[in-house]
Amino acid sequence: MSNQSRRKFMATTALTGAALAASALPSFSQNKKQVIHHVFFWLKNPSSKEDLDKLLAGLKTLEKIKKVRKLYIGVPASTEKRDVVDNSYHASELMFFDNLEDQKAYQDDPIHKKFVEDCSHLWEKVIVYDVQDI
Amino acid sequence: MSNQSRRKFMATTALTGAALAASALPSFSQNKKQVIHHVFFWLKNPSSKEDLDKLLAGLKTLEKIKKVRKLYIGVPASTEKRDVVDNSYHASELMFFDNLEDQKAYQDDPIHKKFVEDCSHLWEKVIVYDVQDI
Repeated sequence: MSNQSRRKFMATTALTGAALAASALPSFSQNKKQVIHHVFFWLKNPSSKEDLDKLLAGLKTLEKIKKVRKLYIGVPASTEKRDVVDNSYHASELMFFDNLEDQKAYQDDPIHKKFVEDCSHLWEKVIVYDVQDI
Repeated sequence: MSNQSRRKFMATTALTGAALAASALPSFSQNKKQVIHHVFFWLKNPSSKEDLDKLLAGLKTLEKIKKVRKLYIGVPASTEKRDVVDNSYHASELMFFDNLEDQKAYQDDPIHKKFVEDCSHLWEKVIVYDVQDI
């Protein structure tokens, strides 16, 4: 085998090996590093449509934060009632970040701080789930 | 004004009125009807890497269900510890559906039923949040 052929053979083998290793892994085990930030809010005055609208409008301002890749604002869906379903919350904020650093930067962003300042009197409880996409 | 002109005027006015009404609404109030289904799992054996892998592999099978538009499988992200952050869960499944009907169809899908059959012995607690995107 010439040096050139050997190099080519070795390069091909290495590539095939890498491809095999990659295909052997289920796709969800590839660390995409994407961070999903899901926040649920319970209002102090659940019957106040005005308070809900204020909170939703406040959440809407968060989409101006550049680190926020995607933002979904929502309310409980009218899916079937089941014991495992918690539909007691009043508003939901779902965000995607490229990585942990961006999520941290978001927490410290002036627009986020202003939202908390303007709206935190509206809620009595918040639960945050931070998920690492795999 | 001729009948034809009047019809045209009325149609234009109606359209302009509709456009104005739509533009007056913040964009998040347009009902996109998308349903976000977020499920958090707590394992019976939190220290078992094998059980977690089994659960994640089971969750992965759900992407074959055609009604599932997007599927994100994850684990707790290592964001900063705060009182409001619940990072006690072990696995997260986040799905997007086009509408409520598709979410219902998903619940009844044989692939979903098989996942529950194969994996429900692994978890001790599940919380489901169904969100209507607005």
